Amino acid sequence: MFNFKEYLVEKQEIINNSLVNLLDTFPLYSRLMQAVKYSLMAGGKRVRPILCIAACEAVHGELQNVLPIACAIEMIHTYSLIHDDLPAMDNDNLRRGKPTCHIQFDEATAILAGDALLTLAFQILSSADSFQGHHNEDHNAVTRLTIIKILSDAAGCNGMVEGQMLDISSEAKLLDLDKLEHMHSLKTGALIEASVCAGAISGGCNAKKLEHLSSYAKKTGLAFQIIDDILDVEGDPLVMGKCAGTDENRNKNTYPSLMGLKNSKILAEKLISDALNLLDIFDNSADPLRGIAGYIIDRNR
Amino acid sequence: MFNFKEYLVEKQEIINNSLVNLLDTFPLYSRLMQAVKYSLMAGGKRVRPILCIAACEAVHGELQNVLPIACAIEMIHTYSLIHDDLPAMDNDNLRRGKPTCHIQFDEATAILAGDALLTLAFQILSSADSFQGHHNEDHNAVTRLTIIKILSDAAGCNGMVEGQMLDISSEAKLLDLDKLEHMHSLKTGALIEASVCAGAISGGCNAKKLEHLSSYAKKTGLAFQIIDDILDVEGDPLVMGKCAGTDENRNKNTYPSLMGLKNSKILAEKLISDALNLLDIFDNSADPLRGIAGYIIDRNR
Repeated sequence: MFNFKEYLVEKQEIINNSLVNLLDTFPLYSRLMQAVKYSLMAGGKRVRPILCIAACEAVHGELQNVLPIACAIEMIHTYSLIHDDLPAMDNDNLRRGKPTCHIQFDEATAILAGDALLTLAFQILSSADSFQGHHNEDHNAVTRLTIIKILSDAAGCNGMVEGQMLDISSEAKLLDLDKLEHMHSLKTGALIEASVCAGAISGGCNAKKLEHLSSYAKKTGLAFQIIDDILDVEGDPLVMGKCAGTDENRNKNTYPSLMGLKNSKILAEKLISDALNLLDIFDNSADPLRGIAGYIIDRNR
Repeated sequence: MFNFKEYLVEKQEIINNSLVNLLDTFPLYSRLMQAVKYSLMAGGKRVRPILCIAACEAVHGELQNVLPIACAIEMIHTYSLIHDDLPAMDNDNLRRGKPTCHIQFDEATAILAGDALLTLAFQILSSADSFQGHHNEDHNAVTRLTIIKILSDAAGCNGMVEGQMLDISSEAKLLDLDKLEHMHSLKTGALIEASVCAGAISGGCNAKKLEHLSSYAKKTGLAFQIIDDILDVEGDPLVMGKCAGTDENRNKNTYPSLMGLKNSKILAEKLISDALNLLDIFDNSADPLRGIAGYIIDRNR
């Protein structure tokens, strides 16, 4: 039987090793790269790259082809965390139980480390070296351009960056549920969906399966955010590595604040159940994707 | 006879129109895109995209193929200006005679507008739409991936971002000329060289010509920076749209401060003369590149 916990640990290790190898090709003595490495290796859960790899596996793709893409995605995610934590934005001092980048280094270094990570993602995605020795018909230049397009669209002004803009400009304003969902679909949903789609495309996914995976990702991504909101209310700060109750203190709009804790949990469970149904057309290779959906609803950090 | 001033005005207009058209495909009512448009259309000289177009023309390439690349380059340049101007970095209030992005909007919006512009560059470079109707043998997916690689390498932690890191961390420290040149080669040189190379490659340039153009760009880029330093000492603030003497006030290392004004001018002239010699293997199609070299040495802003 498929053991998701083992899968998670195994893939986290593969991703972490791969990220370190990628960073090691750069001169790490520079303060900039120290800050990049500090934030990138600060113990993230690697949800997005694992989703990317799992989607590739679900369509019987090769790990070697998808790994550089998964690493690039984690770099885009980490850059967004560094910039979101800045004093001018969320002004967070703690991330994953450690001082945030601008606290550990300084504000200028944190801004530049974020810029470097975002750029590095595209350096890796466009580099023949990243994919060397793993070329095949499904992994040609057109596929890689498509993946760059999907990820940059998800990260940019129609996706994550606009989502963060909406998030900071809606603090202390009361949103309705539709607007909250729209904000999350941009801020976190777009990159989660792009992670799944990029992984699937790198594995040579057909159009019908891609549609199912894309919907699976939308639902799983929203559930992920709702659980995040719930954990902020009732999570254990020691387990999460960050303070609980920060959303309320900031007058942030959250699912619990708009629909209550109980209904938020019911909604998250419904989304995960729908996401699992969308995987019915896949064989056992989609077990990791099934496992991630279960993990998201049961996680405590 | 070739009229460089007419060429400059004509190409600036083409680039500006193309930038506006690209932005117009996004919802401009958002505060984020207002900030993006504000900074992108704030009257830049468009040196980098014009270098890119001129390099393409020098090898008899097509304007239609190079224009989206030129626009992406100006976006990368503008993002770097927005972030460099931030309070945590150079803390500049004025840019091209107008309030900087974080003054006109706010700090969070400026950080995000920079992030959006950098990402937008890669959205455009990876989008088939950007190049629609202009496909040809020399402009296939492999070429476009190569161009993404060249530009992201020049922009990132081995290029522009590391250069800015060196620049802010070397303020108030005395550099020698080698270190100053190294800093500039990263901070401004890398993207200028990449602009020329990307334009040439999009035009189907051969290896020998690419080598000449790359050296031309290195020398022209360094001369550009030296003239910048000189203008900061003796330029007219009204013409430049920014204050003079800011480098000295900040204890910045500059060519005039390290080797004096007269020797700085001699060095810039020598670099431009060498750059022009490198163009001897080209026909009249390289006249725009020759004109830009002359413009850089004679400019007053």
